[in-house]
Amino acid sequence: MTEKIKIDDELFIGGREFNIIAGPCAVEDEQQMDAIGKFLNRLGVKIIRGGAFKPRTSPKSFQGLGMEGLRILKDIGEKYDLKVISEVMDPRDVEKAYDYVDIYQIGSRNMQNFTLLKEMGKTDKPILLKRGMSSTIDEWIQASEYISMEGNDQIIFCERGIRTFEDYTRNTLDLISVPIIQSRTKYPIIVDPSHGTGRKDLILPASKAALAIGANGLMIEIHPKPEEALSDGLQSLNFSEFEDLYEEISRMEKALKMNG
Amino acid sequence: MTEKIKIDDELFIGGREFNIIAGPCAVEDEQQMDAIGKFLNRLGVKIIRGGAFKPRTSPKSFQGLGMEGLRILKDIGEKYDLKVISEVMDPRDVEKAYDYVDIYQIGSRNMQNFTLLKEMGKTDKPILLKRGMSSTIDEWIQASEYISMEGNDQIIFCERGIRTFEDYTRNTLDLISVPIIQSRTKYPIIVDPSHGTGRKDLILPASKAALAIGANGLMIEIHPKPEEALSDGLQSLNFSEFEDLYEEISRMEKALKMNG
Amino acid sequence: MTEKIKIDDELFIGGREFNIIAGPCAVEDEQQMDAIGKFLNRLGVKIIRGGAFKPRTSPKSFQGLGMEGLRILKDIGEKYDLKVISEVMDPRDVEKAYDYVDIYQIGSRNMQNFTLLKEMGKTDKPILLKRGMSSTIDEWIQASEYISMEGNDQIIFCERGIRTFEDYTRNTLDLISVPIIQSRTKYPIIVDPSHGTGRKDLILPASKAALAIGANGLMIEIHPKPEEALSDGLQSLNFSEFEDLYEEISRMEKALKMNG
Amino acid sequence: MTEKIKIDDELFIGGREFNIIAGPCAVEDEQQMDAIGKFLNRLGVKIIRGGAFKPRTSPKSFQGLGMEGLRILKDIGEKYDLKVISEVMDPRDVEKAYDYVDIYQIGSRNMQNFTLLKEMGKTDKPILLKRGMSSTIDEWIQASEYISMEGNDQIIFCERGIRTFEDYTRNTLDLISVPIIQSRTKYPIIVDPSHGTGRKDLILPASKAALAIGANGLMIEIHPKPEEALSDGLQSLNFSEFEDLYEEISRMEKALKMNG
Repeated sequence: MTEKIKIDDELFIGGREFNIIAGPCAVEDEQQMDAIGKFLNRLGVKIIRGGAFKPRTSPKSFQGLGMEGLRILKDIGEKYDLKVISEVMDPRDVEKAYDYVDIYQIGSRNMQNFTLLKEMGKTDKPILLKRGMSSTIDEWIQASEYISMEGNDQIIFCERGIRTFEDYTRNTLDLISVPIIQSRTKYPIIVDPSHGTGRKDLILPASKAALAIGANGLMIEIHPKPEEALSDGLQSLNFSEFEDLYEEISRMEKALKMNG
Repeated sequence: MTEKIKIDDELFIGGREFNIIAGPCAVEDEQQMDAIGKFLNRLGVKIIRGGAFKPRTSPKSFQGLGMEGLRILKDIGEKYDLKVISEVMDPRDVEKAYDYVDIYQIGSRNMQNFTLLKEMGKTDKPILLKRGMSSTIDEWIQASEYISMEGNDQIIFCERGIRTFEDYTRNTLDLISVPIIQSRTKYPIIVDPSHGTGRKDLILPASKAALAIGANGLMIEIHPKPEEALSDGLQSLNFSEFEDLYEEISRMEKALKMNG
Repeated sequence: MTEKIKIDDELFIGGREFNIIAGPCAVEDEQQMDAIGKFLNRLGVKIIRGGAFKPRTSPKSFQGLGMEGLRILKDIGEKYDLKVISEVMDPRDVEKAYDYVDIYQIGSRNMQNFTLLKEMGKTDKPILLKRGMSSTIDEWIQASEYISMEGNDQIIFCERGIRTFEDYTRNTLDLISVPIIQSRTKYPIIVDPSHGTGRKDLILPASKAALAIGANGLMIEIHPKPEEALSDGLQSLNFSEFEDLYEEISRMEKALKMNG
Repeated sequence: MTEKIKIDDELFIGGREFNIIAGPCAVEDEQQMDAIGKFLNRLGVKIIRGGAFKPRTSPKSFQGLGMEGLRILKDIGEKYDLKVISEVMDPRDVEKAYDYVDIYQIGSRNMQNFTLLKEMGKTDKPILLKRGMSSTIDEWIQASEYISMEGNDQIIFCERGIRTFEDYTRNTLDLISVPIIQSRTKYPIIVDPSHGTGRKDLILPASKAALAIGANGLMIEIHPKPEEALSDGLQSLNFSEFEDLYEEISRMEKALKMNG
């Protein structure tokens, strides 16, 4: 069993816990975030995700609200009793973001941004380390050592799919990385089926498989109106779709626990 | 829900059924097959796999027993009440093998062997179509049309992993192909975690994920003494390991059915 | 230096020779082939390619003229003094095609069709072995051993690109396979920039690189009217484009020979 | 023809120029660099490469000499009249490194480190942008726009191979990216056959192909004693091997120019 990463006194990732994290790809404005926060709180979700610094392939795409986005996230987190996870891309922002996030995220493009890994390794906050889009599992584990060598071993791996020739899905979700990471490190690993598949209709089956293979949680993109989202609309669930998924996965989790 | 492919009056693949097929990579001799047949019968397994014609990367590797292997398979199948699945590689062998197998297998290397696909499409036996090791899902579906256009639509897809840069596992098991095949065709799909991972310790977690994502079954390599197997020893389970897996997957199947 | 494969008393592939093979993806009719044959003969090309049996992803695509295509090819070859290369996919066609082709081709999808490899290995004709679309160089070399073990070592390798995540080109032309094949086997290797890139504008630069890296020749798709071709129109050169390429590559070949 | 990037009043990359850049993977000490600088100066090489900040997969590997390495590089550059290219990984080091390098390098792992791209885009020095190890050509071009949007359009692309299933070579050198970058941007592109192949014996053939396909130069790893190098020894040429390559490529360049 993996170690438990403490998020607060009553909230952990790892061990026997199964956490479902949700939120929009990008923090767009207060109204959007308020609607999401309220919805997640009602469902019982404990952790909200939201991108403030957005790494986008093109400089012409929406780049996120930056620090203003983090402020909105934190407000919503406090208002609705949600812990906050958000990506930081610039080592100079690690300190600035410290008071706004409960879990730092290192995005796929930055898995081998060693400067950033070391800077976060100096903090005392949990770090979600996404797999690089073409990184081997070995490289991923070695990247985590840049964090732990600085003294921080509150690491949470996140499988989000790898790049292959298959083009029906956005990425190929390599679910077998879950038991491999769990046996070769002491850290928990969650699965991101939103980026891992890139298609709304595949998020539920991918989530079931992630739960069954032993993942320590899920991270899922939602949006009040996916068709109007500033990014990743195609892979974002609306509230009703997410509620269905949340209930189905929760039922399945219970059934598997009683069984196992 | 997928169509049910009839194997005999009481045995189907597809629909709500979940079948676990097992057997050795290669049929080696009668003694090996008798031990396996007896064991599978005791467990309640209904279908045995075993390679008689073995497609091997090198011509110097063991190429299988050929027709003699099929004869052994058929005898064991009759003795232990097991249906038989085996690969045929040469279109000229399709007719010869007809009386010996209950399900033809088309191997990964032959997914686009259109001559072979058409030849099997002319028979009235079910056909297990493995995914090519670098084939897209679209290509795989189109390959199946070479079979159905000849009049045979007793097709069973089999996901067995694709080729990527990741080298810790033998292949990258693309489990998301399961719901894609089920939504884009009417056919069932099973998963081969033995080739899909290439490592004994990953077969159980991969099998759980396959069940949870909705696969119609599993095909697993076993061997009385994997360390002495003429091929694929590293990924073959011994009897005790397979029995554990069989029971755990069966329990999980029941738990999920009661839940869902 | 590689061995020379004898095509006829005065024509060889390998050694210090550099051959440019050209022709349409598919033999469509006599008129098309006559125009191409006449054109190639005028330029000084010695070998014509043309597909009679076409392996197509979908059974609904044009499948080639079959034996009738081979008859047309042979007639054109005799009329215009061109040697003929054509693919055979079915082991039962190897013997039938024997009198019609000077060089058998094994296509990418059939690189590991061991039945076919062995059947051709029993003949005394040269065999062009295309690389499988996701085969490693090791697997390719081992596939060639299925031919040579039957007694035929008139093998010509053909690099045609491999499957990667890059989608601007149809395949990723792995030119470094040229010196690897030449150092690890005794056989010549030619390059197919038409399938290797899938784009007309990239065929000339790819051909120059192939010549410079030491390939023993090129195989290029041409068509009198690429926009009306029954297959692969996007990557086929018209006569004027091919003539420019032929002259530029021939000049470069001379310049490099004088230099080296 | 691409634009010419001015390195100094008499030195350009791009246009009709063909530059061969050489140097060690990592700056190890003054003695090593003095030997290399003297050697390159004697041959007529104009630009030396050398890593001071080394992005290494494992934090336990040699991480480079940092600023001390840059100081050594600059001294050697001045002593032997060589322009200096070196990688910077941390946006906070861009300014610090400014006085020490003539060309900034952005390494493969940092191709989508947008923070770093923007920081360098604010300087007035040329930037060598290596292709990400699994980046598409589109993504690479879009990454360059993060630089040019800040006002710096002295961009030099560098193809260094992509990640595929082929494991005989370290990467698959995608040489066709050369004409694609040249037609879709106005910038020059050079080729790194050292990382692109990972094997000494393949560097010369890869270099010939790069020249023939129209690359604007090469960047090659050399070391006085490759077997003692602190990193990348297997792919580094010793002085005598590099001298042979330098002469052969220069002869070929002349032959092609006279021809074309």
